[in-house]
Amino acid sequence: MKMPSILSAMLAASLVFASCADGRDSADDPAALVDPLIGTDGPGNVYPGVSAPFGMVQLSPDNGTSGWDRIAGYFWPDTTIAGFSHTHLSGTGAGDLYDISYMPAVPPFKTGRGELGVYSVFSHDEETAQAGYYSVRLEDYDTRVELVATERCGMQRYTFPQTAEATVFLNLAKHMNWDYTMGSSLRVVDDRTVEGYRFSEGWAPDQRVWFVAQFSQPFVSYDIDTVVSVHSDSAYNGIESHIGKFVFDATDGAPVLVRTAISAVDIEGARRNLAAEMPDFAFDSVRTAQRALWNAELSKIEVKGGTRAERTAFYTALYRTMLAPTLFDDTDGRYAGPDGKIHAGTPGSRNYSTFSLWDTYRAAHPLYTFLHPGRVREMAVSMLNFHDQHGMLPVWPLWGNETDMMIGYHAVPVLAEAALKGLLPDSMQNRVLTACVETANRDDYRSIGLYKRLGYVPADLDKESLSKTLEYAYDDYCIAQLARKMGRDSLYNEFIVRSKNYMNVFQPASGFMQPRLSDGEWVPDFDPKAYTEHITESNGWQYLWAVQQDVEGLVRLMRGPQQFEKRLDEMFALHPEATDSLPIFSTGMIGQYAHGNEPSHHVAYLYNYIGKPEKTQRYVSEILRTQYSDRPDGLCGNEDCGQMSAWYVFSAMGFYPVDPVSLTYAIGTPLFEESVVRLPGGGTFTVRAPGVSAERYRIEKMTLNGKALGTPFIAWNEIMAGGVLELTMKK
Amino acid sequence: MKMPSILSAMLAASLVFASCADGRDSADDPAALVDPLIGTDGPGNVYPGVSAPFGMVQLSPDNGTSGWDRIAGYFWPDTTIAGFSHTHLSGTGAGDLYDISYMPAVPPFKTGRGELGVYSVFSHDEETAQAGYYSVRLEDYDTRVELVATERCGMQRYTFPQTAEATVFLNLAKHMNWDYTMGSSLRVVDDRTVEGYRFSEGWAPDQRVWFVAQFSQPFVSYDIDTVVSVHSDSAYNGIESHIGKFVFDATDGAPVLVRTAISAVDIEGARRNLAAEMPDFAFDSVRTAQRALWNAELSKIEVKGGTRAERTAFYTALYRTMLAPTLFDDTDGRYAGPDGKIHAGTPGSRNYSTFSLWDTYRAAHPLYTFLHPGRVREMAVSMLNFHDQHGMLPVWPLWGNETDMMIGYHAVPVLAEAALKGLLPDSMQNRVLTACVETANRDDYRSIGLYKRLGYVPADLDKESLSKTLEYAYDDYCIAQLARKMGRDSLYNEFIVRSKNYMNVFQPASGFMQPRLSDGEWVPDFDPKAYTEHITESNGWQYLWAVQQDVEGLVRLMRGPQQFEKRLDEMFALHPEATDSLPIFSTGMIGQYAHGNEPSHHVAYLYNYIGKPEKTQRYVSEILRTQYSDRPDGLCGNEDCGQMSAWYVFSAMGFYPVDPVSLTYAIGTPLFEESVVRLPGGGTFTVRAPGVSAERYRIEKMTLNGKALGTPFIAWNEIMAGGVLELTMKK
Repeated sequence: MKMPSILSAMLAASLVFASCADGRDSADDPAALVDPLIGTDGPGNVYPGVSAPFGMVQLSPDNGTSGWDRIAGYFWPDTTIAGFSHTHLSGTGAGDLYDISYMPAVPPFKTGRGELGVYSVFSHDEETAQAGYYSVRLEDYDTRVELVATERCGMQRYTFPQTAEATVFLNLAKHMNWDYTMGSSLRVVDDRTVEGYRFSEGWAPDQRVWFVAQFSQPFVSYDIDTVVSVHSDSAYNGIESHIGKFVFDATDGAPVLVRTAISAVDIEGARRNLAAEMPDFAFDSVRTAQRALWNAELSKIEVKGGTRAERTAFYTALYRTMLAPTLFDDTDGRYAGPDGKIHAGTPGSRNYSTFSLWDTYRAAHPLYTFLHPGRVREMAVSMLNFHDQHGMLPVWPLWGNETDMMIGYHAVPVLAEAALKGLLPDSMQNRVLTACVETANRDDYRSIGLYKRLGYVPADLDKESLSKTLEYAYDDYCIAQLARKMGRDSLYNEFIVRSKNYMNVFQPASGFMQPRLSDGEWVPDFDPKAYTEHITESNGWQYLWAVQQDVEGLVRLMRGPQQFEKRLDEMFALHPEATDSLPIFSTGMIGQYAHGNEPSHHVAYLYNYIGKPEKTQRYVSEILRTQYSDRPDGLCGNEDCGQMSAWYVFSAMGFYPVDPVSLTYAIGTPLFEESVVRLPGGGTFTVRAPGVSAERYRIEKMTLNGKALGTPFIAWNEIMAGGVLELTMKK
Repeated sequence: MKMPSILSAMLAASLVFASCADGRDSADDPAALVDPLIGTDGPGNVYPGVSAPFGMVQLSPDNGTSGWDRIAGYFWPDTTIAGFSHTHLSGTGAGDLYDISYMPAVPPFKTGRGELGVYSVFSHDEETAQAGYYSVRLEDYDTRVELVATERCGMQRYTFPQTAEATVFLNLAKHMNWDYTMGSSLRVVDDRTVEGYRFSEGWAPDQRVWFVAQFSQPFVSYDIDTVVSVHSDSAYNGIESHIGKFVFDATDGAPVLVRTAISAVDIEGARRNLAAEMPDFAFDSVRTAQRALWNAELSKIEVKGGTRAERTAFYTALYRTMLAPTLFDDTDGRYAGPDGKIHAGTPGSRNYSTFSLWDTYRAAHPLYTFLHPGRVREMAVSMLNFHDQHGMLPVWPLWGNETDMMIGYHAVPVLAEAALKGLLPDSMQNRVLTACVETANRDDYRSIGLYKRLGYVPADLDKESLSKTLEYAYDDYCIAQLARKMGRDSLYNEFIVRSKNYMNVFQPASGFMQPRLSDGEWVPDFDPKAYTEHITESNGWQYLWAVQQDVEGLVRLMRGPQQFEKRLDEMFALHPEATDSLPIFSTGMIGQYAHGNEPSHHVAYLYNYIGKPEKTQRYVSEILRTQYSDRPDGLCGNEDCGQMSAWYVFSAMGFYPVDPVSLTYAIGTPLFEESVVRLPGGGTFTVRAPGVSAERYRIEKMTLNGKALGTPFIAWNEIMAGGVLELTMKK
């Protein structure tokens, strides 16, 4: 009888983690400060379940209903769970994935409420969410579910009540949000093993998830239902897919476990992933190993001081910066490309997808250059391979598909930054430059040709024209910097000229960036507070500052520092009126500043450029302390695959990459009295700010390794050399 | 025992049709002159199977192998048949469809040769192809297969040898050419009935075919194989679909029949289609009724004189003009739109898809205005609904999908012609004009915005720029004509100006239309014989003449009639050199004139515009007699959904729509001594040319209802008024 040994293992595990759950808060176990439930309420749109760092599997509970708030499957105010599925998006505005969904239950099954299949109510009181571990009791079935995951596999442990009808549903038919099943396969291999696939259409237009799953004990009976879809969207009606029902004898009270591997390649890939990563049912060993992995990653930064709530918000943010991009290959290296074909992996480099680049080029990828230089190289290789297979660098790839969401060609700053920081081998640099230049010359893509010809994207010929102009110009500057480093002078000249195109949409009379027509005239009736089709998810206030590459030039355009400062002050003061209807992505508002969306993210740091760092400090302190918390609604906007959190991680340490490719960081004001970054080379970089607090956020003096800093900026190589940035806070 | 009655029905049917097969050639039975095997050899790319006029089902044999020559499933030189499937394309360059494929066989089954599944060899000696009927004996199984079809259903009659193992495979997994199975469903409803679907990706990116099928007798056993795909294209590997195997007792020698309905909507739609169109197994009744239907359509034109081969080529051509566009809805009116949604039908109007508009706006749709005014209205409604669902008029829709194949917005001439000819109700005209104008102002689509701004599509910013410029200009002229008729003067002015944009790509120094850069310069090193990315499937010679809307203007650009004539003469004389490698679509060459592709189709008629009709007559006569025949290789190029054949139908009668929207026809030289068009209103229009022959193709005198014609042109309203065009041939 095996129960005792398993029970004792469970007890041991409980003892190990009990102290964490109780709040042990040490440098050894920063994972204890991660609360994956932060951001599951409000607009954060994150999931509370488990993932390995940058893992392909995100095994997490789904409430079973659709809607903007349930885009990651789970919304704190909900009270139901209708499955645990293996793929989720971390804080986007797009509802996709939710593949390979399981639901344990005991008859009688609760069904029949709208979209929910078999479901149960649950209580947050009986729910535990940690880095690498999630657990909840399903009230209706008196069944505890525990989840762990490796990179490509998930394991679930179901502790049923003593019953001969312990039932596990494997639902390949589930529809939520944008995700529709287009077909499935569910084969019973033996009395413990099943395999198959689920194909779906959604945001990723062609998503194929193969899986292999094994239960820890034989099922005593099973039934595979072929269900025919019925949706309000007639496009997805009448499609057959499968729900498996597996019944186990749990009269001995022993838990039933299931381990599941997924693959985007084929069944054989899924089989290999399972054998390589999760060969047995050692649930607690996986949990322990994953906790150790997370601690290894999280301990790359150590913060001291602040409140426990602030440290919890910080380590949870740091955790969230490692939930995307996601690994997207099999253990044998193979992966599905944007051309729909299966590719052999690049030796020594794993493949990644889920690049939310419009968001993450700003701070998430810059953070990776400090903490994950090896992954930075692998992500660069992934992007270059994507370019070779797709004809251009990725814009917003998901599950290997190009979704063409958002704008710009922001793989360019990511690659340029990595190359300029020396994180890519010299042998890659020509390939990087070529891919960037080819992408920036895809004249047929989103008005790049027009942009080159006119110097801006004309508003009468394309949508989001103002935003495209400004973002193309930034990306062009990045190419110029890379070209200069490589001694490619004529390319440098070509792209540095293009990078000045932001000037072509600056309207001197209004002092704003404005959408412009192809005949050179301005689109009439410009209102900087208005959200129009010319500006991506934003208004004229928010996009005025989208000149990270040449803040000095922008200051000149705006007729000097005084005017620039006045405009910035207005930005933070001009509160939306009660009658203004703000779009769904304009959240975290401080005046017209919208911390809930990315175009604002560098704006508070711009005061540094006109000699007014005290105002940067004021607004950074305000944002750190009002737009983030350790509560379920602790994110003020979509997490966006790590960018909201990366802003917090940088800013809480006291510096931020306004222009990542400049390799220079603007100093804001830290949240903690001490932050220590463990550098990849072995040293540390420490920011100290004794006495810093909500009241004492202003910096009187800055020294780096004892020498006074002349300006509120610090360089990449200064940080990487290690040492101490000492900030003396004003009394 | 039912054999005798079935046998007697078969015998009766054989008697009825025997005389046809023997060559009865009368006005009562023009279908006897249809040979669907014409064009199955050479580049015609047509299928030999059965279809109702404009039907949704095209039930036809497939050789079972892929390749350019097998794009319609069947290639005359092949010796194998590996299935009879329900959907095919008539003469395109794109290999898609082949849905719901059956194969009768008797053990031992022949398999194992490459792509072929279960197959048999066959001989053309044991094959019969007629309008609405096809039959072949499968040698390996001594089994005769006969096919008939209604609009949405196909019926097959299998006469097996006496065997208890008469087997029918239903293959939902078959892959050919661009078509890959993405999923299928095969359910046995009872011992005679099966239903399900096949989803595939190919040229149509999302093709869903639901079906219901019933056998005429119970199967004694069945087996459904789930097959997992293995292709050289890894994108389509590992996908499950089904092959059903149904075994019948045919020891009594009675044939086994199967009737199958398809639907793009759902199973219920397929069920209704079967009940409405093919409620029983009365194979011969369907055959007789379909023959009558085809005769009703074919007898709309009667030709006299010529050889039997010429009349066969003519009626086969006329037949082929009615194989596309295809009906695309269910009997209850519902259909799948380009938005992927299911739409209720427009009352009183059936929905069509498979519009090969770049080809068919030239002569096929004009022919429909004479022969099928009711369908012209329905096709217009279909296009307008497509516009509402897709945001623009169709470009190349297939199975409800927009494939975006080829260029232009050539739904515009089709709609404008129909409206100008008074075939659309007045209440539709505003909707037509709006849809045309909106489509022509889709600035984000294929450089339409650039075209409007620069007056041409710049070659450095888009591909096929020269062809796009010229075709947009023609379509704009069509909008202008429609606007003028509707009294919309400012719209007329706007679009008539756009229609002159062809002038912007005429290079005076070379005397050719040339691709032009966005800075106004010409693309260097222009060679009019070269096939480049700037010109759609053609070279500079072939696109020089793409100004159907303003031939007089083109004559002036080319510095007068002498230069124009000289260039035309050169066009027909400048033969490709042996070392020139011509692209696959450049066939039917007479000099640089390529009758095998559409841009050349009006060119021989251009001599009429400069007072040299004798040269039009010379080349039209040559094309009629050298580029078409009654042999399997009787088409010199892709049939292109009726356009190659419509050229022949018009030209063989003696006139052709150089510019369909002008409502004026250029007179060429007829193939027949007499052609009578039965007009929709009840009268007839007759072209007489006594003594016309290969030698006597030149016209001495033309009179219309006894009055001499001043120019070699005749107007729509003159034809529709009925009467006789008398052509006196030169001795």
